[in-house]
Amino acid sequence: MSTVDGFRALDDKSLVDYIKATPSLFSILGASDNFQIKEVGDGNLNFVYIVVSPYGSLVIKQALPYIRCIGESWPMTKERAYFEATTLKQHGRLCPAHVPEVYHFDRAMSLIGMRYLEPPHIILRKGLIAGVEYPLLSEHMAEYMSKTLFYTSLLYTTTTEHKRGVAEFCGNVELCQLTEQVVFSDPYKVSEYNRWTSPHLDYDAESVREDNDLKLEIAQLKSMFCERAQALIHGDLHTGSVMVTQDSTQVIDPEFAFYGPMGFDIGAFLGNLILAFFAQDGHATQENDRKAYKKWILVTLRETWSLFYNKFIALWDENKDGPGEAYLPHIYNNPDVRQLVQTKYIQDLFHDSLGFGSAKMIRRIVGVAHVEDFESITDAGKRADCERKALNFAKMLLKNRRKFVSIDEVILAIHEIDS
Amino acid sequence: MSTVDGFRALDDKSLVDYIKATPSLFSILGASDNFQIKEVGDGNLNFVYIVVSPYGSLVIKQALPYIRCIGESWPMTKERAYFEATTLKQHGRLCPAHVPEVYHFDRAMSLIGMRYLEPPHIILRKGLIAGVEYPLLSEHMAEYMSKTLFYTSLLYTTTTEHKRGVAEFCGNVELCQLTEQVVFSDPYKVSEYNRWTSPHLDYDAESVREDNDLKLEIAQLKSMFCERAQALIHGDLHTGSVMVTQDSTQVIDPEFAFYGPMGFDIGAFLGNLILAFFAQDGHATQENDRKAYKKWILVTLRETWSLFYNKFIALWDENKDGPGEAYLPHIYNNPDVRQLVQTKYIQDLFHDSLGFGSAKMIRRIVGVAHVEDFESITDAGKRADCERKALNFAKMLLKNRRKFVSIDEVILAIHEIDS
Repeated sequence: MSTVDGFRALDDKSLVDYIKATPSLFSILGASDNFQIKEVGDGNLNFVYIVVSPYGSLVIKQALPYIRCIGESWPMTKERAYFEATTLKQHGRLCPAHVPEVYHFDRAMSLIGMRYLEPPHIILRKGLIAGVEYPLLSEHMAEYMSKTLFYTSLLYTTTTEHKRGVAEFCGNVELCQLTEQVVFSDPYKVSEYNRWTSPHLDYDAESVREDNDLKLEIAQLKSMFCERAQALIHGDLHTGSVMVTQDSTQVIDPEFAFYGPMGFDIGAFLGNLILAFFAQDGHATQENDRKAYKKWILVTLRETWSLFYNKFIALWDENKDGPGEAYLPHIYNNPDVRQLVQTKYIQDLFHDSLGFGSAKMIRRIVGVAHVEDFESITDAGKRADCERKALNFAKMLLKNRRKFVSIDEVILAIHEIDS
Repeated sequence: MSTVDGFRALDDKSLVDYIKATPSLFSILGASDNFQIKEVGDGNLNFVYIVVSPYGSLVIKQALPYIRCIGESWPMTKERAYFEATTLKQHGRLCPAHVPEVYHFDRAMSLIGMRYLEPPHIILRKGLIAGVEYPLLSEHMAEYMSKTLFYTSLLYTTTTEHKRGVAEFCGNVELCQLTEQVVFSDPYKVSEYNRWTSPHLDYDAESVREDNDLKLEIAQLKSMFCERAQALIHGDLHTGSVMVTQDSTQVIDPEFAFYGPMGFDIGAFLGNLILAFFAQDGHATQENDRKAYKKWILVTLRETWSLFYNKFIALWDENKDGPGEAYLPHIYNNPDVRQLVQTKYIQDLFHDSLGFGSAKMIRRIVGVAHVEDFESITDAGKRADCERKALNFAKMLLKNRRKFVSIDEVILAIHEIDS
């Protein structure tokens, strides 16, 4: 086991000693030697252990200096754990109801000790594949996104705080580069990492690589991703980064966090809901045609955006005399001008979200990392039909997003492609 | 004389010893004790000394921890000298013909030793007031802006380099805040610092403070200024930051430099040319009605933008297979798509430049810091007429900038207001 700069990759065995030697973790377990460890990392990047004693439980997450699912051939800074822990703590302060508590962070070890999200918590994506409705999901996600994005933007922070945060998260450059590559670049060129349902989507994938208008749009979104420090975003807010029960919604895994465009988070979540929608026909059976569930997904899509909108504006109104330096109260001092700037701000954010959402959908169909929503459809022909609809919708939305003025229009367009 | 952390404010006397003890400066003077020092700082912020020996010359610039023209009551980090020196060196490497050489930088002392721009170099603004034509000005400024902006943007740099630069220049936050206040905020509210030609422009100043559409536009530009790290910009590129002769154009004083929107630099320069244009009627005499000179300013305005455009695109074409990560060659691999993205990029940059240019014009008429172009018009009524035309033009342009498709249309609009 290598030790470089205080780093050791832990395993089930060495983790026991680590926990015993770490009061902030050991105390959560009731300081009991009687605890069980299970490695459960099913993600692409890290090792994750569940630790349970009769008196308590926790999760240990350790980043290794490469991407787990690929191996040491794709190096990736383990410093990502620092940015993940920092973001969990900061977003957790802003929205404790929907971010798991961090008990311990060890920078040298790239190791986070945090709340274990006990059963029946499952990854939202799995719930969506299983056809489970979550009545509070839209409310909770709107709450999480509005609070984390509003409070970390210049709508609430000072220029000094903002630049300090921007400078710090510039350090998470390797993760930003990974996003640039897999979201904004690879799907639009020939890349060894790209894959798709073949031969069914061969022509569709080629069309993406040869669509100049699409390339024009993706370039603008990439620039915004690289240049615009609008808020401390999660950076990877798809339905695999959310754990749910009927009552609880918890956002995890913000290791891609940095100061970027808000629409990248909102779009990731909405786009992945739309992917889940288009995957439903592939999961339909004689007993359950999934029609009612498809309706529920679209309701959730609409509610997530409209609740976000309302909550975000409410936070803005509440804090109009707060520390934020973007809209000074002495300038934006009458209801007319405040409404004018808020409407414009939200309209731009809506279009950004639709753009980034489309980009996230496209890359999940013709890029390196696919989603279980489609992957779990075993019949390749059926899978390709679902994927093609999602891809065509995303391409249309990416090119025409500025023409959409409401989420209802987006839902109408989904119906059109789905019918 | 206070010494804190190695800092001492120098004067004519102590500077002698400093120079003698600093080989990188003393050698420029031929290591001769026989040198003269003259304090010439006519700027708002710093102390500037010209040092001349029979064998050579140099300029010493020292930042003090407050704004010189206001005094210790307006503190301002002397670290700005670090960002100025860093930018002079970086921009100087990219465009040595138009950036004076830095001989020496002492961070503790906030002191820069640099090339003395010998007579007949004068501040461009003074030349414009005097009605002097500079035939190479547009060519030189286009060269300076295209090189410094292109090479420090993601069109040429990698994400890693870019984020490193962004993080470092986040440290220049106090200067950014000063710009936010005096350009994007104060003119749009009641502020003790604002002033204007009164009572002539009382109504005009009030109109700026009560124009909701203008406030909507200025908010968007402010957001871009605060959030968008497009390139390492000069940050204060008005006609007082340029020294000229008939053959030479030198850009000085980049202490406001940071990673911001390119249009802020281009707009500053174009906007100040337009201010110079509208000031000419105030300088007209029976001998010289300034009509020919006004034409020359508009030609220079047009040429600066079109030469910038051509040079910027030429740099992009030359470096299309270079290290820049914004437009990867394998995606933007055919002439059609490259032309498409370049046209869009330049169109957006044009509109940004018009927006920032307008903002810079407005603030010079109703904000804290005015320009000598107008201030030197002693007849207040005449001055107010000139200022009102410039203000009305700027307000119109700020609100309607996206409708302009070419610099010729801008010039037509100037003629309309001027007639």
